[in-house]
Amino acid sequence: VTPAGGPPGTVFFLSDYGTDDEFVGVVHAVLHRLAPGLAVIDLSHRIPPFDVAAGAAMLVRCAPALGPGVVLAVVDPGVGSGRRAVAARTGSGHWLVGPDNGLLSPVADALGGVAGAVRLDSRVGGTFDGRDVFAPAAAHLAGDGDPGALGPEVDPDTLQPGPDAADRGDPTVAAGPSGPELVTSVTWVDRFGNVQLDLGPGSLDALGITTGSTAAVLVAGREPAVVARRVGTFAQLGPDELGLLLDANGRAALVVDCGSAAAALGVAGAGTPVRVIASHG
Amino acid sequence: VTPAGGPPGTVFFLSDYGTDDEFVGVVHAVLHRLAPGLAVIDLSHRIPPFDVAAGAAMLVRCAPALGPGVVLAVVDPGVGSGRRAVAARTGSGHWLVGPDNGLLSPVADALGGVAGAVRLDSRVGGTFDGRDVFAPAAAHLAGDGDPGALGPEVDPDTLQPGPDAADRGDPTVAAGPSGPELVTSVTWVDRFGNVQLDLGPGSLDALGITTGSTAAVLVAGREPAVVARRVGTFAQLGPDELGLLLDANGRAALVVDCGSAAAALGVAGAGTPVRVIASHG
Amino acid sequence: VTPAGGPPGTVFFLSDYGTDDEFVGVVHAVLHRLAPGLAVIDLSHRIPPFDVAAGAAMLVRCAPALGPGVVLAVVDPGVGSGRRAVAARTGSGHWLVGPDNGLLSPVADALGGVAGAVRLDSRVGGTFDGRDVFAPAAAHLAGDGDPGALGPEVDPDTLQPGPDAADRGDPTVAAGPSGPELVTSVTWVDRFGNVQLDLGPGSLDALGITTGSTAAVLVAGREPAVVARRVGTFAQLGPDELGLLLDANGRAALVVDCGSAAAALGVAGAGTPVRVIASHG
Repeated sequence: VTPAGGPPGTVFFLSDYGTDDEFVGVVHAVLHRLAPGLAVIDLSHRIPPFDVAAGAAMLVRCAPALGPGVVLAVVDPGVGSGRRAVAARTGSGHWLVGPDNGLLSPVADALGGVAGAVRLDSRVGGTFDGRDVFAPAAAHLAGDGDPGALGPEVDPDTLQPGPDAADRGDPTVAAGPSGPELVTSVTWVDRFGNVQLDLGPGSLDALGITTGSTAAVLVAGREPAVVARRVGTFAQLGPDELGLLLDANGRAALVVDCGSAAAALGVAGAGTPVRVIASHG
Repeated sequence: VTPAGGPPGTVFFLSDYGTDDEFVGVVHAVLHRLAPGLAVIDLSHRIPPFDVAAGAAMLVRCAPALGPGVVLAVVDPGVGSGRRAVAARTGSGHWLVGPDNGLLSPVADALGGVAGAVRLDSRVGGTFDGRDVFAPAAAHLAGDGDPGALGPEVDPDTLQPGPDAADRGDPTVAAGPSGPELVTSVTWVDRFGNVQLDLGPGSLDALGITTGSTAAVLVAGREPAVVARRVGTFAQLGPDELGLLLDANGRAALVVDCGSAAAALGVAGAGTPVRVIASHG
Repeated sequence: VTPAGGPPGTVFFLSDYGTDDEFVGVVHAVLHRLAPGLAVIDLSHRIPPFDVAAGAAMLVRCAPALGPGVVLAVVDPGVGSGRRAVAARTGSGHWLVGPDNGLLSPVADALGGVAGAVRLDSRVGGTFDGRDVFAPAAAHLAGDGDPGALGPEVDPDTLQPGPDAADRGDPTVAAGPSGPELVTSVTWVDRFGNVQLDLGPGSLDALGITTGSTAAVLVAGREPAVVARRVGTFAQLGPDELGLLLDANGRAALVVDCGSAAAALGVAGAGTPVRVIASHG
């Protein structure tokens, strides 16, 4: 890696390394050694091990908050295989550094698409590429280093697309026996038990679920359906009432005020299918 | 928010956001984007969800360690309700930024009381105010921005008082059948199983429990009482011996050397009533 | 502590403080107050409580990644006892600050040995020495403060040696009924379930276990033995196949690709004895 020429810059770091071991600390140490003064912001390191879809979805949720800098993302079930290590430049001017396994593609789309990419050529690595391959590349790019020094150019169209859960479009609204309905799935259960659905405001509009109106929600394997009321904030719900709101990311979520919708609904995690049925009146 | 004029400063950040999700990382990203160079020190983000009393107590414990800066604290069961978002200036010169729900009042008392306050006027927010309301205000104030630009002044006397557990005075010593006694409660069980009581050195003095003397301790629902010896440090205890010491915050705590007093006593968490009875001799 | 004269420098911080409480945050606050601008890199704070051997082993694994700076390490079952608080200068120019209980000695060996040491004289402390004794010393040394201001010199030969698990040499290869074999033990189970053994490449060579060849592995209490194939990377393993590789620290580890070897083998944690037997052909 050629020494970088510019100011140290900022790195946003996400991984599935967890916090019990020293992996995150070691990557920080490497970044700091290569680029003293670099600001490193941890997005989260508690992505479930090897869960590329969860990592990709989290990066998308973080995207609007990111100032200029380099995203260093490592959820890498294929470490040591033939999968490429890459750095991709987005339309927004961010660099994304990580494995070419779909982790980076959804956030690239959220940041203006990929304008160019290089493959990270490295003779080291194979078991801890966060330390050995990705951190050095991120430090280099954060300092405005020459991307060409990292490896050959890669055709952006050859980058792996994102996992299904993170990049599919709005689901189709069908006419059900009780009114318009659709089937979606859980994309995220957060610490508070909020259950995010793979559903944007357009789908709620298409179902006619406006603020104040109700929907029937059927979680796979959890009959019967339960009623959720669309609200604008948690505080508009009564005690233990199930709500449906657009969350802080602009996505539909099933929520309980000061409580866990996941516990109330029996939702264990991402991927659970959920049927949403517009109520009669 | 008007751009801040001064140097980036320091923010001390506490929340109940946990570390599994990206909430903490997103707030860091927002602070860094608004005030590059700002130092952000995480106090803890593992306050139990919505536990205002636990957050308030932790802030009090942290207070003596804080250099100049802004405390950004978010434990906010009332997000999206009518509760005010505020910034309060303390006698010590710190700014405290967070919801007006009692979270900030005990630490304000510990930092010289509230000298002035403003309400954070914001047209955004309602579900993730840490990102949308509190972090921008904290970045603004950390840079010596004009507080008047954030919103109208608030009468400090109208701020919510702290939750009971965090701001009540010393309990009353009564004459019991075996000697002077009092009833207090657990304020905190830490990682090591140390059981902090809502009891200062004055109460131990009033009970006549001096270093080397013993007390009988009765945890609610856990008869019979057990004996604890007052010591100055953990290392003065024998193996598995229960001790009573003034902890690093100057509060009475039940402890076991290299072991968990909480496990030994069957204490699950804050709030458990505990009767402390001075021993005969 | 005399004010330090130099630039703020870097501190690498490891402890068993956990992340539920404010201990780590308070130490950061103290470091920042004493040395604004200091870079503090958290290695990990989730060492099991009081587990000096685990902390010592983690410091050794981190050592190659550390740039110049001060290592602040606190796993301190003897806090408040007669154990010394020390700062040791290594051949590599690092300062190591912590309790003199064996925690620092293995990483000192990894960093060129101890060239000199001082005892940290302090009239405070006894229950939270990370805040009261070690952090002030680390801030002082990170700013190139005079070590002599911290306390009297200590003969490096009197420092406590490391715990067994962290500093013993390669185990002896014996002739077993099916071929050469040895008994070693687990040094670390990481988040992914990789099982690191107290075994370097020399021992694998001595057993004749080269890449592609197999070994029989017998975990204590878990008969029968299972077969592990030596590979260079995780990705060279088939689904659920047990592998033996040199991990990112150059130590032998039992692994499963995208899975948990610890779960497959029933290994609970460090210390478990493991017999490794070279296969016939």
